[in-house]
Amino acid sequence: MSLNVAIMGATGAVGQELLNILEQRNFPLNSLKLLASARSVGREYKFKGQTLKVEELTKDSFKGIDLVLSSAGASVSKEFAPIAVEAGAVVVDNTSFFRMDPEVPLVVPEVNAEDIKLNKGIIANPNCTTIMMVVALKALEKISHIKRIHVSSYQAASGAGATGMAELEQQYKEIAEGKPCTVSKFAYQLANNVIPHIDVFTDNGYTKEEMKMYNETKKIMHSDVVCSATCVRVPALRSHSESIWIETERPISVEEAREAIKNGEGLQLMDEPENKVYPMPLFLAGKDDVYVGRIRKDLANENGLTFWLVGDQIRKGAALNAVQIAEYMVKNNMFKK
Amino acid sequence: MSLNVAIMGATGAVGQELLNILEQRNFPLNSLKLLASARSVGREYKFKGQTLKVEELTKDSFKGIDLVLSSAGASVSKEFAPIAVEAGAVVVDNTSFFRMDPEVPLVVPEVNAEDIKLNKGIIANPNCTTIMMVVALKALEKISHIKRIHVSSYQAASGAGATGMAELEQQYKEIAEGKPCTVSKFAYQLANNVIPHIDVFTDNGYTKEEMKMYNETKKIMHSDVVCSATCVRVPALRSHSESIWIETERPISVEEAREAIKNGEGLQLMDEPENKVYPMPLFLAGKDDVYVGRIRKDLANENGLTFWLVGDQIRKGAALNAVQIAEYMVKNNMFKK
Repeated sequence: MSLNVAIMGATGAVGQELLNILEQRNFPLNSLKLLASARSVGREYKFKGQTLKVEELTKDSFKGIDLVLSSAGASVSKEFAPIAVEAGAVVVDNTSFFRMDPEVPLVVPEVNAEDIKLNKGIIANPNCTTIMMVVALKALEKISHIKRIHVSSYQAASGAGATGMAELEQQYKEIAEGKPCTVSKFAYQLANNVIPHIDVFTDNGYTKEEMKMYNETKKIMHSDVVCSATCVRVPALRSHSESIWIETERPISVEEAREAIKNGEGLQLMDEPENKVYPMPLFLAGKDDVYVGRIRKDLANENGLTFWLVGDQIRKGAALNAVQIAEYMVKNNMFKK
Repeated sequence: MSLNVAIMGATGAVGQELLNILEQRNFPLNSLKLLASARSVGREYKFKGQTLKVEELTKDSFKGIDLVLSSAGASVSKEFAPIAVEAGAVVVDNTSFFRMDPEVPLVVPEVNAEDIKLNKGIIANPNCTTIMMVVALKALEKISHIKRIHVSSYQAASGAGATGMAELEQQYKEIAEGKPCTVSKFAYQLANNVIPHIDVFTDNGYTKEEMKMYNETKKIMHSDVVCSATCVRVPALRSHSESIWIETERPISVEEAREAIKNGEGLQLMDEPENKVYPMPLFLAGKDDVYVGRIRKDLANENGLTFWLVGDQIRKGAALNAVQIAEYMVKNNMFKK
């Protein structure tokens, strides 16, 4: 089987990474269409030695398309995902719009691939911070049920897209030149700063980003787990880090946890403190797996465990997870053709 | 009363801030001696319009000295603090060496100023991250006893001293010039990175920096509170941030907590998410108080509360706290002369 695929939002950071990943993983393509808004039409990108031109996203873009990988923002998905489904495509949507819709599976293949089978045309890709965390939680949940989570994130500029990364790089250039920093994508200057504010605030004082971790984790894990998150933007470029505490039904030892992470799907154990080996965002950009280290007992909770993880926000946090969902569907003959 | 004061480690980041603070707060000085290692002898610094020359720290440096403000590293304090005490001085020590000594009070004046009276010549200044946290905890402990703490830190380059800040600035310059980054003060490149490793690792997998938060918090608060910390270096210059969860005996409402922080000593409430008002390190360098925001209920614990704080690591995290200890002693006539 080979598929006719369209990328919605092809010019963004995630769109570009989708192109890389489809090529690297040799995804079974019959054709590939790059869709974006009118102002990007005509831009050219290389794919497997060919040159692809960006076409304008319209209601008529989906004729003959089997799979849409969508990453053009919530409002675009809201409008165009149903049209694509109507035209016969499956949409793997990277925006927040459909994630909490009870009719839409929210999937991290390492955790709940089976949910893909329940789709009615749309499958949602979770938020980046949630994806990385649940990949690690899945491995530990097998040892003992996870009841509570406390997590502080250290999120890179890439979470705000290609323009977010460019803004951070520009700010450092401006500082080196003694100029004032340009601030437009982030609420405040990010260079030499950390900003405890990602996405908008909700009524309970948490941001939407933080509430995504609460709501999406429950849905993906089919669990009563409760999660309190503080999401913070830091001046790293494209990998997110998370400092996590979990409380489990029975205590998990560090040795058990290390073994579980080592054997877990989509995970790499990187935990040799004596050799200064632990995950860091600078060195894990472009990697597929979620890297876990600093595993230790929670000194404030007998049933608690704490650890540190890093994952590439654009790959596993977005584009790779979407392609893995599509690969599962290919493998399980879930496309209509 | 006016005192003969010596600064041990006068040329470092904290030593320099001690000079600023003694001048700004018009500390009652009779004389001020700047002490450092032989290689810094002769360096000159301005103080209240006068020029002070750095003298070499020796066993004979403390004749006639009433107060030593010490910030030259643990091994220097180990050697010279007892000599200074023997010579009749009180030593306020900013290093880790004496902090957990049961004979030495460990003091944050807003929290346990009374402990100063128990000193036998040496009073220890806690670690920066602990100081900032306990200032906030003190205000909340008055509402309900704090039983557990989980904290992730976002610590600035200044924690590694003036050379730490210089290294971070140099790395960004090198990146802007397309050169490889110089790495010497930190374990890895800090620019565009975060490093989950401050001070050395201990047997339980926590770093010494993290264990300081566990041990020092108990000692300062005279409490059974238990604290699990993950301490992380981030590319900010001189203010530390902390993401904190506390569990209290009875639930504390957000309103109660805000009121307590607003009225707390050494604290500033900075918590208007609807107006994008929350503490950030870039904008709070040079401030005396600890700034607290993002106060909200812990979604994973009915008796839990979470908040975010920022404080200047060199001021309240070190130099200011030491001077405040000395000021308390002046006010309470605790010097021998």
